Amino acid sequence: MIECFRMIEEKNILLTIAYDGTGFFGWQRQPHARTVCGELERLLSDICGFPVELFGASRTDAGVHALGQSASFSGRMGIPAEGVARAVNDALSQNRLERIGEIQIVSALEKPPGFHARYDATGKRYRYRIRNARKADLFLRKYCYQVTEPLDVNAMKTAADFLVGEQDFRCFLSAGGNPQKTTVRRIENCSVEKKEDEILLSVSGNGFLYHMVRNITGTLVEIGAGKRPPEEMKQILESRDRSRAGHTAPPQGLYLEEVFY
Amino acid sequence: MIECFRMIEEKNILLTIAYDGTGFFGWQRQPHARTVCGELERLLSDICGFPVELFGASRTDAGVHALGQSASFSGRMGIPAEGVARAVNDALSQNRLERIGEIQIVSALEKPPGFHARYDATGKRYRYRIRNARKADLFLRKYCYQVTEPLDVNAMKTAADFLVGEQDFRCFLSAGGNPQKTTVRRIENCSVEKKEDEILLSVSGNGFLYHMVRNITGTLVEIGAGKRPPEEMKQILESRDRSRAGHTAPPQGLYLEEVFY
Repeated sequence: MIECFRMIEEKNILLTIAYDGTGFFGWQRQPHARTVCGELERLLSDICGFPVELFGASRTDAGVHALGQSASFSGRMGIPAEGVARAVNDALSQNRLERIGEIQIVSALEKPPGFHARYDATGKRYRYRIRNARKADLFLRKYCYQVTEPLDVNAMKTAADFLVGEQDFRCFLSAGGNPQKTTVRRIENCSVEKKEDEILLSVSGNGFLYHMVRNITGTLVEIGAGKRPPEEMKQILESRDRSRAGHTAPPQGLYLEEVFY
Repeated sequence: MIECFRMIEEKNILLTIAYDGTGFFGWQRQPHARTVCGELERLLSDICGFPVELFGASRTDAGVHALGQSASFSGRMGIPAEGVARAVNDALSQNRLERIGEIQIVSALEKPPGFHARYDATGKRYRYRIRNARKADLFLRKYCYQVTEPLDVNAMKTAADFLVGEQDFRCFLSAGGNPQKTTVRRIENCSVEKKEDEILLSVSGNGFLYHMVRNITGTLVEIGAGKRPPEEMKQILESRDRSRAGHTAPPQGLYLEEVFY
C-alpha cells in the first residue's frame, strides 16, 4: 500500500505549447469564454484525475498565436510527463478531419518542486508577421497583419534599433492591462527582416508590457509607411506618452515564440 | 419617368469569387446553415434592392475553398457591375480587424441576357494542396491535407497520367451527390508538383463528379505512400467501382481555382 502510494509522486510539469489563437478568447481562463488555458485545464484534469490549475508564462490576447507558450502545473500523478503530452495531443486531434488540433503540446518536462512557468521566466521572444503586398490574401487574414501600402524596411530597421536596451517603455503600454510596478524593460534584440511578401519582426526581452509588441509594431508600420521619420522612435520613447506612439497592430500577426528560463 | 425607368435596365452579372471555406457549410444555400451563396445573396439583395438569386458554377462542399468560383445573377439595377463588387467587398470587410472578409469578389462582369454561370461553364480547374512533412503544421490545418508519411511524387505523377482523357470516372463518384446522366468526363490536365513541403495537384476538365477530385487525391496519396503501385490507377478506372479507389481526401485541401467559359 505504501509502495503503491510512493509511485504516485508529486510532479511539477512544464509544458511548451503551440496554438492557433483564432478560435480562442486568449490564453487566460474565463468563466464563460473559450480560452486556451481553460481548454487545457479541462483536458489535463480529465487525464490526471485531479483539478489541474495551469500557470502560463504569458497571457496572450484573443487572436494571438503561440509557437512556444510555457505553462506549468503540479500534482500527484502516475503518468510520466511525456504521457501527459501524448494524451492531451491525442484528445485534441481526435475525430478531427485535419488530424491536428488547434492546440499542440510541443514538449512536456519534469521540473523541480516550486518551479513556476511565469515567475521563473527570464524573458520571452515574440514574432510579428506583417504581410506587405498590394493585395490582401484571403487565406492569411487570421495569421498576419496585412498592410497594403508599401513599407520601407530600412526605415523600420533604423527605428527598431532605438528599442534595444533597458529603458522605460511606458509609451507602448496600452490602457487596460494589469498594474505594473515599473514600466522599465530590457529589449535584447529587435530585428526586422523582409522575406518575399512578408516583413517579420522578432523581439526578445526580459519582459513585455500590455500590448507592448503590438504597439511597437504599429509604430514601426507608420514609420515604414513614411508617416513618421525613423528617428522619431527615440522621441516617442523619451516622451513616455502612449498618445505619441503609433496604433496597436492587430492581434492575428503576433506569435509568442519562446519563453526563456 | 420613362427615361428614369430606362436607366434601370436588366443586367446579368457574372461574379468571380474567392473564399475561405473554413467557416461555411459549403457553397449552396441552406435554410439554417451559413453558406457562401446564402451570405452573398443576403448582401446582394441589400445592395441591389431586390431578392437576388445567385447561381454558382460549382457547389463546393463545407470546408472547400475557392480562388475563382463563378456565380451569376440578374435583375434591374442602376449600379454598374463593378459597383456591386465594391459594395459587397466593403460590406464583407467592414468592422474587421483583418481588413478583409472571408469572401472576396475578385471581379464582376456584365454578360449578355440568358448567360448562366453553371450551364454555360465549359470546364473547371481545381487545385489540391497536400502538405507532406513529418510534422503537421498547426496553422495550415484548415488549408491543406497534412500527410506525415513520405510520399513518392514520381509514383503519383505516373498514376495521374492515367487520368487524362475522356473516360468513365464512376470509380471516383461518392455516394450522396445529385443524380448524373453520365459518369463520363474529360480530364484535360492532371499535374502533380512538389514545392518544398507541399505537393500541389492541379486538375482541369470539362466536368467533375461528386467528390471526384477528393477521391482522385485520396487514391494518389495511397499510391504515393506505396500502398498501391501507380499502374493500379488504370485498373481502378476500368473497374468503375468506387470501392476499388482510395479514400476521400479531406475538404480543406481543395480549392476551386477557375471556371472556364
